[in-house]
Amino acid sequence: MVVVMRPNTCQEDIERLVERFKRMDLDVGITNGVGCTILGLVGDTACVDMDKISMNPHVERVMRVQEPYKKANRKFHPEDTCVQVGTAAIGGGRFSVVAGPCSVESEAQIISVAEDVKEAGAALLRGGAFKPRTSPYSFQGMGLEGLELLLEAKAATGLPIVSEIMSPKYVDVFEETVDVVQVGARNMQNFDLLKEVGRMSKPVLLKRGLSNSYEEWIMSAEYIMAGGNENVILCERGVRTFETYTRNTLDVSAIPAIKQMSHLPVIVDPSHAAGLYWMVEPLAMAAVAAGADGLIIEVHNDPPHAKCDGQQSLTPEKFGHLMGRIQGLVDLMGKTLVR
Amino acid sequence: MVVVMRPNTCQEDIERLVERFKRMDLDVGITNGVGCTILGLVGDTACVDMDKISMNPHVERVMRVQEPYKKANRKFHPEDTCVQVGTAAIGGGRFSVVAGPCSVESEAQIISVAEDVKEAGAALLRGGAFKPRTSPYSFQGMGLEGLELLLEAKAATGLPIVSEIMSPKYVDVFEETVDVVQVGARNMQNFDLLKEVGRMSKPVLLKRGLSNSYEEWIMSAEYIMAGGNENVILCERGVRTFETYTRNTLDVSAIPAIKQMSHLPVIVDPSHAAGLYWMVEPLAMAAVAAGADGLIIEVHNDPPHAKCDGQQSLTPEKFGHLMGRIQGLVDLMGKTLVR
Amino acid sequence: MVVVMRPNTCQEDIERLVERFKRMDLDVGITNGVGCTILGLVGDTACVDMDKISMNPHVERVMRVQEPYKKANRKFHPEDTCVQVGTAAIGGGRFSVVAGPCSVESEAQIISVAEDVKEAGAALLRGGAFKPRTSPYSFQGMGLEGLELLLEAKAATGLPIVSEIMSPKYVDVFEETVDVVQVGARNMQNFDLLKEVGRMSKPVLLKRGLSNSYEEWIMSAEYIMAGGNENVILCERGVRTFETYTRNTLDVSAIPAIKQMSHLPVIVDPSHAAGLYWMVEPLAMAAVAAGADGLIIEVHNDPPHAKCDGQQSLTPEKFGHLMGRIQGLVDLMGKTLVR
Amino acid sequence: MVVVMRPNTCQEDIERLVERFKRMDLDVGITNGVGCTILGLVGDTACVDMDKISMNPHVERVMRVQEPYKKANRKFHPEDTCVQVGTAAIGGGRFSVVAGPCSVESEAQIISVAEDVKEAGAALLRGGAFKPRTSPYSFQGMGLEGLELLLEAKAATGLPIVSEIMSPKYVDVFEETVDVVQVGARNMQNFDLLKEVGRMSKPVLLKRGLSNSYEEWIMSAEYIMAGGNENVILCERGVRTFETYTRNTLDVSAIPAIKQMSHLPVIVDPSHAAGLYWMVEPLAMAAVAAGADGLIIEVHNDPPHAKCDGQQSLTPEKFGHLMGRIQGLVDLMGKTLVR
Repeated sequence: MVVVMRPNTCQEDIERLVERFKRMDLDVGITNGVGCTILGLVGDTACVDMDKISMNPHVERVMRVQEPYKKANRKFHPEDTCVQVGTAAIGGGRFSVVAGPCSVESEAQIISVAEDVKEAGAALLRGGAFKPRTSPYSFQGMGLEGLELLLEAKAATGLPIVSEIMSPKYVDVFEETVDVVQVGARNMQNFDLLKEVGRMSKPVLLKRGLSNSYEEWIMSAEYIMAGGNENVILCERGVRTFETYTRNTLDVSAIPAIKQMSHLPVIVDPSHAAGLYWMVEPLAMAAVAAGADGLIIEVHNDPPHAKCDGQQSLTPEKFGHLMGRIQGLVDLMGKTLVR
Repeated sequence: MVVVMRPNTCQEDIERLVERFKRMDLDVGITNGVGCTILGLVGDTACVDMDKISMNPHVERVMRVQEPYKKANRKFHPEDTCVQVGTAAIGGGRFSVVAGPCSVESEAQIISVAEDVKEAGAALLRGGAFKPRTSPYSFQGMGLEGLELLLEAKAATGLPIVSEIMSPKYVDVFEETVDVVQVGARNMQNFDLLKEVGRMSKPVLLKRGLSNSYEEWIMSAEYIMAGGNENVILCERGVRTFETYTRNTLDVSAIPAIKQMSHLPVIVDPSHAAGLYWMVEPLAMAAVAAGADGLIIEVHNDPPHAKCDGQQSLTPEKFGHLMGRIQGLVDLMGKTLVR
Repeated sequence: MVVVMRPNTCQEDIERLVERFKRMDLDVGITNGVGCTILGLVGDTACVDMDKISMNPHVERVMRVQEPYKKANRKFHPEDTCVQVGTAAIGGGRFSVVAGPCSVESEAQIISVAEDVKEAGAALLRGGAFKPRTSPYSFQGMGLEGLELLLEAKAATGLPIVSEIMSPKYVDVFEETVDVVQVGARNMQNFDLLKEVGRMSKPVLLKRGLSNSYEEWIMSAEYIMAGGNENVILCERGVRTFETYTRNTLDVSAIPAIKQMSHLPVIVDPSHAAGLYWMVEPLAMAAVAAGADGLIIEVHNDPPHAKCDGQQSLTPEKFGHLMGRIQGLVDLMGKTLVR
Repeated sequence: MVVVMRPNTCQEDIERLVERFKRMDLDVGITNGVGCTILGLVGDTACVDMDKISMNPHVERVMRVQEPYKKANRKFHPEDTCVQVGTAAIGGGRFSVVAGPCSVESEAQIISVAEDVKEAGAALLRGGAFKPRTSPYSFQGMGLEGLELLLEAKAATGLPIVSEIMSPKYVDVFEETVDVVQVGARNMQNFDLLKEVGRMSKPVLLKRGLSNSYEEWIMSAEYIMAGGNENVILCERGVRTFETYTRNTLDVSAIPAIKQMSHLPVIVDPSHAAGLYWMVEPLAMAAVAAGADGLIIEVHNDPPHAKCDGQQSLTPEKFGHLMGRIQGLVDLMGKTLVR
């Protein structure tokens, strides 16, 4: 951490601050120049509150030079983490595709899609039972009944299931039913929910918020890990920018950035990023080429009649085509496609 | 709603779509041109799912021309809504200031700040008991004990209290203790929480999410109103942009925009927008001049030792200075400062 | 400037780098901690190339702690700069309003608008002769003829004129005709043009680019000042964000921020920020209340038939109403409205 | 184009507007509903000024449904355009890599880098003679001397050269020296410069502005094409977002989007997007996998001593490694790497 003192702060005030830092078990180095003094702090600065220091009337600016996260930090855990879910695996050279409809709509629909995506090579089945919708007047998902239908689809195909949790009150049900608990983009900083899923035994798929930085995203993973659940999969799904042609702007740089910062696996959701079915394939390819550990793709047996997000859903046929191209690219990347 | 057909769609396919809209009780007008057909839809389009229509293989684009919100819509409710909280009132020409510390830290602290802000002219007391913090290692608030201390401060000063709810599990406690329930920026699209506070009897202060559009913000108010709770106060607190000098970028245009779109009152939080205490006064002045119905300001008796957000907190002295200037400007705007 | 060394850099490599800094006449302080060394550099760091240092294989990160601008820096020039243009004055407690049409369209139009805005209290006349248009098929301005018509309007009313320069090839003509040379948002980083206007004797109104930070904006002013022209007026005109309701998002925080960073005057263009005529008045009021030194407002005698930007232009009548409110607010702010 | 009338506009006013559209040779369809009338306009709407119509007091909103660009529009030119530059070719299944230093620094440097990148498989040589720098105190490029050195490097290697033009005054020199004229991101809406390069005979590499939409970017290409120069190569180089870890945020979605909207080739500049040398390779791979027609990569023989942008430059060795991976991926994509 670096503390820049205001010009012309007297020696006494500087010393008082230095003493305070030393009492916090930090090493302090002082650079004195004409009208400017810089303090360098070294030690366990993760728990130092920057805001508090910057409120000191003699302080001009405080800058962090070390990361505020520990459990998710690659520096303290150099090897890639691989999250296992049944036979599927994400990270550390193993690549898995999660596929399925935006929302579970009926027994016939979810089983049909599950069979189709398994056939095409998906390793996990996604399906929304509880749906975050912008409008209170839109379809809100089938709820608990949707989870039941997902279990049937799992029984029929053997695919582990991924579904989004929207409220702490369903933690017990999700613990018993799903294989991977998804935390949606809009809940990435729902800290209460993060603490709850941190106590679960199931892996967590943590989507990036629409305007959250890499560091904030990793800090949300840190919340879950600090609770004891270290199986976190990060999922880039596009950020909000000025461009309105696409629903969001896929940030592929997130993949190499997160791999530098953290040991956790990163997957990509090109369906929500683009919001346009015909753009899913090129974005999925880009994600794999940038080093992603997996993909999550919306597939629907009848997109024009989907209850939500039909515009970004692939038909099973188009998904099959995509999987063919992904297989070739995953091979080229020297990874193993788990199916 | 406007539907643009793909070039060269045959007459039959167009007619089939038109029939479908007519069965939804919509009036349809058709514009035929060389290589381009446009359908205009009029009627109750709030429940029409744009995504679904845009999935029709013959449709190029769908555009909404009417607002998807009803209860919050000024068109159906031309008069300003004024939310009453005890003697305080927000909206319809009545201007109130909410002030207090970022978080409740002790009995002495909250009572001292409450007395100071009351003295200076605040009409409501704010104070965080449950704090949304980016890091799991930061102070998370005093919780239920914090709510108790707020009640003491209310008893001592008579000021109604505003505090943030972070989880559905505290709905009952908040219903019994606070006077205004705050939903934070990070929870603006925590739809489960919105539904819960929609069932409460207390007014809701709904902060705008860091990257949410005016329409999405009003749709979140609509969630609360659809649940039966029509006392919603919207609070602009800055959006996230590329500029890093300030914590966020205060969007003053939100004030006239929301007043055009909705009848709900709008207040502004310059403290979180700026993140810098010395910028709070000019931004507060700007908000009043742009037509805001109130302000929410962080005030701390000892900012350098605040447990959070000290950097953006005013001392009671600076807050007194601000209130003097606000009083003059509220008068100039032809509104009444409630104190 | 602060240089963070990579963990485990050997002492020799650190010393070599320290030597290099000392040869650049910088004072260097060293903080050694477990696995982390921080160097604090003090002295004339404005000319140190951060990129170059950060390329050193032993360097993890470089952070600037001093501003890279000098002539525009308030630290070296504590008093407000007031730019005089004939009888008009902007800055240092003097407030002027620039008004006029987006583009000059005819002799009758520009003279009529000039007379109207003068009557209402404007101190300068704006009018575009060369227009930056997104489409090559849109009206591009009257060019040199437009400048002639502005001179006629100046002769008729006495108002000094402000007009936008789009190319270095017109520097001589602008030097002879206009009173204030405007550099548009899209040319804020057209460094070649900045150098040219830096050699002119006329004050420069420098608009902020649509996605430029405060620092970049001041650096563009520094380009002009480094060329010898120190009469720079900064103009905030909205930045680009995800919100599409308004044309751009007015950033009122720019006003107090620039006043902290620089001694140059700041004015605001609410017309281009909002893109909606009915929003101009509240945003203009907000700008004044936040401490702006002036306003630039689009006024057209017949907005529905304006050749460009009619949607954001005020009628002379509405402008008169606005000026009445501005007068009261400028008084309240303790400034003098120059008219 | 769609025009939404204000609620309760009388029949007469609607008819007057319809007449006006018919006089502009447009077909007009009318949809009448309770409290809402929608007009659909079909015909040559590219020249209709939306702003002007929206100023009509009876008009609530105007929406464009057809693209405002013609020459760059894929609808009127379905085949991919392939831009030929000597033996290099970009577009239509042919993939070329442009490589070289950020700026030309000396004869030895540019010839050495040119030989290295040719050896590794680059088809064109880039090098800045005129440099857009944020600070007036930074190295501004070698100017005309830099162009001379580029010609020497071309003579030595046979590689066609790409260099950035910053001012209309150098149009003649660039016409005589370079093979591809680059227009930088900061000049994407320097319309005067666009008109000038539109008259040149050399292909133009048009970088996307830091906050410009796809449509604005294509409109800038349209400026060049409208001037007669149809050899435009679009170059995505990252947009500005809230994320500060990378210099900019690479928008890979731009590749499939532009290919849908336009027939022009699209290349990607991962060096400027990331601003970090170690991120260039994964982003370059992502660009190829998303369908880019080429890459432009910064390569420097001695990055730590580069006069600018060293932090994002690859060494010739790293560039060689990248080219090996690119070759494999271009093959997989079914394209031909031109070298």
